[in-house]
Amino acid sequence: MRKIHVIGIGAGDPDHVTAAAVAALNETDVFFVMDKGQTKSDLVELRRRICQRFIDDPGYRFVELPDPPRAAAEDGPGYRQAVADWHDARARIWAAAMAAELGPDGVGAFLAWGDPSLYDSTLRILARVGAHLDFDYDVIPGITAIQALTARHRIPLNDVGEPVQITTGRKLREHGLTGDAVVMLDGECSFLGCAPSTRIWWGAYLGTDDELLAAGTVGADGERIAELRAAARARHGWIMDIYLLRP
Amino acid sequence: MRKIHVIGIGAGDPDHVTAAAVAALNETDVFFVMDKGQTKSDLVELRRRICQRFIDDPGYRFVELPDPPRAAAEDGPGYRQAVADWHDARARIWAAAMAAELGPDGVGAFLAWGDPSLYDSTLRILARVGAHLDFDYDVIPGITAIQALTARHRIPLNDVGEPVQITTGRKLREHGLTGDAVVMLDGECSFLGCAPSTRIWWGAYLGTDDELLAAGTVGADGERIAELRAAARARHGWIMDIYLLRP
Repeated sequence: MRKIHVIGIGAGDPDHVTAAAVAALNETDVFFVMDKGQTKSDLVELRRRICQRFIDDPGYRFVELPDPPRAAAEDGPGYRQAVADWHDARARIWAAAMAAELGPDGVGAFLAWGDPSLYDSTLRILARVGAHLDFDYDVIPGITAIQALTARHRIPLNDVGEPVQITTGRKLREHGLTGDAVVMLDGECSFLGCAPSTRIWWGAYLGTDDELLAAGTVGADGERIAELRAAARARHGWIMDIYLLRP
Repeated sequence: MRKIHVIGIGAGDPDHVTAAAVAALNETDVFFVMDKGQTKSDLVELRRRICQRFIDDPGYRFVELPDPPRAAAEDGPGYRQAVADWHDARARIWAAAMAAELGPDGVGAFLAWGDPSLYDSTLRILARVGAHLDFDYDVIPGITAIQALTARHRIPLNDVGEPVQITTGRKLREHGLTGDAVVMLDGECSFLGCAPSTRIWWGAYLGTDDELLAAGTVGADGERIAELRAAARARHGWIMDIYLLRP
C-alpha cells in the first residue's frame, strides 16, 4: 500500500530535526510540496538544505502540487465552508498526484514547518484523501516555533501551574488578552492593543541565520518591535514571527 | 566559564531526540539528575538508553542532586511562596553541585522530558543559580507530549483558525472547559466533569513500548479511559498521560 509520512521538520533550524524525521526522510521517494511563489524562496532553500543534510541517498524527487484557489470569505460560517471546500479541492488534487507519482508500495511525504498539528492543514486534507485513494499515513512530530521561541529566550511557556493559550492575531484582537498567550499568524502586531504593562517575548525567523529576538513590555517596547518587524519584512519580502504575552 | 545545557529529550520515544540535543548530549561531562524514587525507575532507564544510544564517548557522569522538602501549601499566595522558597533552596544546592562537579570550563546538563519550557521548573531554578555562581546556559527545545499525542492520533491540535489552551487538571476543574484544551498533570481524570458530548483524545506513556491511546467522547468513553488509566497506573506504579478536549 502507498505510504505517506507527514514530517514536522522544526521551526527553521536544521538542528531541530529529530531522529524519527531523519528516518522518515530517508524512506521517502517523493516529497509533495505546495510552494507559494517567490516570496518564500528562503524557506524552499532551507527545506532543500534539510533534505541534503539528512538524506543519505539522493534518489528522492520533489513534486509540486497546484494549489486550488480559495474563496476569500472573511469569517463565520462562510469562512468555514470556504475552508472545507478548499480542503476538498486539495484532497482531490493530492489523491491524483499520489496515484500518479507513487508506485503501489511507494513512500511519499509532506514536510511541515514546526509540527504538523499546529495551524497546518495537511492532516485535515489527508483525512479527506482517503475518500479518493487507499493509502496509509503516519505523523512525525516536530519542534514548533513556540518551543523555539521559549528556548531562545530561555523562559518557561507557562507560569507556575497556570494555563497558557495558543492563539492567533485575529483572535487576540477579537477577545483581548485574558491570561498568558502565545500568538501565531499575526500580520498586524495585535499586541499593540494590549495593556502597556503586558510583557512580551517576540521572535522572528527563529532558528535561522536571520533570527530576530526582542523582549520587554508592550508599553516600552511594542512600537520598537513593530518597527523591527516591518523593516525585516520589507528586507526579506516575508516574515514568520511569534510572541508570548503575559498580562 | 562553566556551561549548562538544558536539553529537551522528547516525550519518551528516543526517536524524538533532535540533532541539536544529540550535539549537546555529546558535549556534556556531567548530567545533573533529580530522581523521585523507585516509582519512576522506568524513566531513569529510558533516560539511560537515550544517553547510550546518542553519546559516542561514554565519558560522562550522572550526579544526583538532593531534592529539598517542599511545603505542602495547596494553592493561592501560600502556594506561590512555597514554590518560590523551594526554587531558592534548589538553586543553592544546584550552584554548590555545579561548582563542585564541573571544572572552570566544564559542561553540565539537565535533561527535561518533553520540552524544558512546559510545566518544568528547571529554567526557573537555573535563573536563580546565577545569584550564587557565574555560569552560562542554553536551552535545546524538545518534542512535547502535546505533539506526541496529536501525532499518534494523527489530529490537528487546533480547530481551523481557533485557539487552544494548554492547562492542568486542577485548572480544568476550577474553570470548566471553554474551548479546545490540552490537559496535562491531571491525576484525577478531570475530563469526567465535562459535558458528555465533549470529544477526547487521550494518551499515556507516549512514545514508549507501553503507550496507550484512546479516543471518543466523555459520555461514551470517559469511564473506559478512567479505568484504563487506573489499571495502567497500578501495573506500572506511575503514569504520565495527557489529553485533548474539544467541546
